Amino acid sequence: MHGTYGSNRAEELHPGGYSMGGYSSDIVVDENYTIKVPSKLNVAAAAPLLCAGITCFSPFKNFGVTKGMKVGIAGLGGLGHMGVKIAAAMGAEVTVFTRQESKRATALEMGATNVVVTGDADQLKSAAQSCDFIYNSISAPHDIVMYLNLLKNRGTMCVVGAPPDPFTTLRSGTLLGRGLNLQGSLIGGIRQTQEMIDFCAEHDILCEIELIPAEAGAVDVAWDRTLKADVKYRFVIDTAATMVCGEAKE
Amino acid sequence: MHGTYGSNRAEELHPGGYSMGGYSSDIVVDENYTIKVPSKLNVAAAAPLLCAGITCFSPFKNFGVTKGMKVGIAGLGGLGHMGVKIAAAMGAEVTVFTRQESKRATALEMGATNVVVTGDADQLKSAAQSCDFIYNSISAPHDIVMYLNLLKNRGTMCVVGAPPDPFTTLRSGTLLGRGLNLQGSLIGGIRQTQEMIDFCAEHDILCEIELIPAEAGAVDVAWDRTLKADVKYRFVIDTAATMVCGEAKE
Repeated sequence: MHGTYGSNRAEELHPGGYSMGGYSSDIVVDENYTIKVPSKLNVAAAAPLLCAGITCFSPFKNFGVTKGMKVGIAGLGGLGHMGVKIAAAMGAEVTVFTRQESKRATALEMGATNVVVTGDADQLKSAAQSCDFIYNSISAPHDIVMYLNLLKNRGTMCVVGAPPDPFTTLRSGTLLGRGLNLQGSLIGGIRQTQEMIDFCAEHDILCEIELIPAEAGAVDVAWDRTLKADVKYRFVIDTAATMVCGEAKE
Repeated sequence: MHGTYGSNRAEELHPGGYSMGGYSSDIVVDENYTIKVPSKLNVAAAAPLLCAGITCFSPFKNFGVTKGMKVGIAGLGGLGHMGVKIAAAMGAEVTVFTRQESKRATALEMGATNVVVTGDADQLKSAAQSCDFIYNSISAPHDIVMYLNLLKNRGTMCVVGAPPDPFTTLRSGTLLGRGLNLQGSLIGGIRQTQEMIDFCAEHDILCEIELIPAEAGAVDVAWDRTLKADVKYRFVIDTAATMVCGEAKE
């Protein structure tokens, strides 16, 4: 695995001591590790599919998300909004679980059938034991048991966010009483990534992005906004400027 | 669901205010909820199959335990020893994880291929990432992360014990980094229970039991020994005496 900018693994280091990762102007890749992006997809809006897209597509495929299945999406950020679009395109009936009522309209536009505001006890209660599968994209501390209660008997929740704290409320009994599954997933392999890109091209699925130039000022502002969760839904850095540098070297 | 002796659900109460559950001398059951126990099976040693046997058989079948699969059994008590016998009969290569070196010989006799004493750091290290599936039957407090580390990438651990404490060491990152699954299971349904009994009859599998009479003194001693984990591996109460009472009523 090669990481993005800033890795300190010796074999990735650029002359000068930096790894450029995905920000490289030029890169040599074994063809078995390349993905073909259909030309109909906007490159900027397709870029985050290679992270946020495959991060949900892989567990959906491994679980077997299909037509009519009840899929919950916990959290509607960069990862969650792709979960909504892809699960809906797979034919699932999608319920978004969010803290913010303000996200309702957007969630429905993206393909959700239902939106449950988790701070509303009545809404939460009416969604109890309703999901076959929950894609939990929340990276902030949260009570995982509250979300497990939203699964049907023998349902599965996949976590892809990594809150810093352990599951201090989760007991073995919570899982065994109703035969629940708690799984984790991290991105996906090359074959599924190609399958995901082709699926997104077929269903006209792209990320919602804000395109920014590859300039220190713009990146700093984007970083500050990211920390405040103020991004709809992924920042994409336009590396055209660095591409010019790359070409100039040749 | 009807529980065993002592339930206070009104529809189970015996005249006099007690529910007799599995200790009843006479019982009326819908034929769809009966299990046919093949006559070749010793009734006393087959009795705990209906709890300890189905408790492992169900998750094994649901996961798809099969020939050559690497199955770990955590804890070698009433539940764990059935896990060893049944997984081995399914063709799996079984590793028993136990705190007690003294259980090694018995575990191998029951069908295990390997025994790992969990207090021995070298043995534990050599078993890292070795199991496709782990049946975790431990009901005492334990570090679940230590056992998750024994799973291969994308492996599954099924917990059937219910320690009182939450999983204070388990983080989301533990599951997602290697795509692990943590599931719970509770006994099993009627169809799988019949399938389990037939499987056990075919493979000559019975529980290891200590048969005691249905007398207060014997039951008290058994109870005290159970609290000290001093039982190989299930006590079975011979209800012949209460059956006489039942027949006398007719």
